[in-house]
Amino acid sequence: MENEYDIAIVGTGPAGLSAAINAKIRNKSIIVFGNKDLSSKLIKAPKINNYLGFYGITGKQLKESFEAHISNMKVNITEERVNAIYSVGNYFVLMVNNKCYEVKVVIIATGMEYTKPIKGEEEFLGRGVGYCATCDAQLYKDKVVTIIGYTKKDEEEANYVNEFASKLYYIPMYHSDYNLKSEIEIVKDKPIEISGQDKVNKLILKSSEILTDGVFVLKESVSPAQLVPGLITEGEHIKVNRDMSTNIKGCFAAGDCTGTPYQFMKAAGEGLVAALSAVSYIDSNSELY
Amino acid sequence: MENEYDIAIVGTGPAGLSAAINAKIRNKSIIVFGNKDLSSKLIKAPKINNYLGFYGITGKQLKESFEAHISNMKVNITEERVNAIYSVGNYFVLMVNNKCYEVKVVIIATGMEYTKPIKGEEEFLGRGVGYCATCDAQLYKDKVVTIIGYTKKDEEEANYVNEFASKLYYIPMYHSDYNLKSEIEIVKDKPIEISGQDKVNKLILKSSEILTDGVFVLKESVSPAQLVPGLITEGEHIKVNRDMSTNIKGCFAAGDCTGTPYQFMKAAGEGLVAALSAVSYIDSNSELY
Repeated sequence: MENEYDIAIVGTGPAGLSAAINAKIRNKSIIVFGNKDLSSKLIKAPKINNYLGFYGITGKQLKESFEAHISNMKVNITEERVNAIYSVGNYFVLMVNNKCYEVKVVIIATGMEYTKPIKGEEEFLGRGVGYCATCDAQLYKDKVVTIIGYTKKDEEEANYVNEFASKLYYIPMYHSDYNLKSEIEIVKDKPIEISGQDKVNKLILKSSEILTDGVFVLKESVSPAQLVPGLITEGEHIKVNRDMSTNIKGCFAAGDCTGTPYQFMKAAGEGLVAALSAVSYIDSNSELY
Repeated sequence: MENEYDIAIVGTGPAGLSAAINAKIRNKSIIVFGNKDLSSKLIKAPKINNYLGFYGITGKQLKESFEAHISNMKVNITEERVNAIYSVGNYFVLMVNNKCYEVKVVIIATGMEYTKPIKGEEEFLGRGVGYCATCDAQLYKDKVVTIIGYTKKDEEEANYVNEFASKLYYIPMYHSDYNLKSEIEIVKDKPIEISGQDKVNKLILKSSEILTDGVFVLKESVSPAQLVPGLITEGEHIKVNRDMSTNIKGCFAAGDCTGTPYQFMKAAGEGLVAALSAVSYIDSNSELY
């Protein structure tokens, strides 16, 4: 099958990149989901003195070193949003917009900058709430759809869904010029709650309400527990062992999402450990797939 | 008191150095015991591709980056051999040849390249076996002393002890020209066992025996359990929690000595975590000292 890999790495901060280079060195096929800008936290760091080997550099410079490293090792970044990861027996299925991927092992390195769910979002997931508008567009033919967009890229998705929906509301969670079809109604307001009976029928905003059949929340990342059903967390963090394994066989985690301190060097060290643990898990479980 | 510090770091591989820069950033007073050459394992690495941010560098180049980093941050390395670390209530005493140091917190980052004990060494420790010849020299006035030396620096110690002993045997565990006083007898043979009744009376070598009142084993580093009495290990490794704390309050560990994988990036990440855990331990225990 196409879209099969040994290891999926979710996240392109220092933990994800460190996992990627180590998995690659060990000759595993990998797919790395994230952002070609790597990590917003990294770019924003004004000065970093505690990443051993680099003194007095900016986040931007460290990012450039990381880019040079992964580019030399031909690690590619897939800019697709992973909506859910299901452990199904000996392998994992990753739901990525209108595709799925099958992998033997997953490494979660999603950081801590994920968007908190809106009230009602989790309750109505699959009953009018979705994370992939393009995947579900056809279900909303001639219906009213609301898209909550977190980045400019989401405008494309809105334009596409608009071809099916009878009416489309777009709620931007960022400031920009919007490149949206003229029929789309832009609502600049803060989402407070998704409500309904059996299914969604309303989005309540801070100073208005929208009657809608569906709400798509196109946030960049969801919390680990939402991303991987069944994953055990301690507070906000994924519970991991010293080898970065989680409670789910074949699922490893690294970086900020596994706990404090939130530091690049800690994340990079854990990424390495997660990758090597993943490799040894694959090599000692020949029945995988 | 002189010789008091917040944190003692034992080891100058990536774990120790990463701990040092992080403790320094947090404004703690530190003393770092190790080698100005940093780490023999580092220097020997022909090529390193998995330390995120540096691609295709040699161990020597990575070492130079580390040196530049610590020198910019004014981290000094104390080239003294730590013989034992005792937890005494709220603080630690480090026995360092003829001195001692008092610190609030200890970070063990000694790696895995320590010398295995000779048969009988641990049994006769303090009863004719010692690790610091200069400290105990006066106890061996007019007695027969044997020094097992692992580096050229140990020759100085032998020359000093020779002023007290009636006879001094020097067993070099390295190849070199020896800069020893002419009365000292050099024995090029492999130590097998230290034996005696209540006290040491003999060193058995591979092809000879020496009748001796004392044996000094001047190895560069001892196993963690030997270094810190009471430290719990799992196999050869120090047992640590995710925050790099050990079973002894105020004693943290990082790097290869805490377990596999033996990788620079893992060690550096753990050094950071150990340092920040140590800082938070000091800051939340105002009664220390």
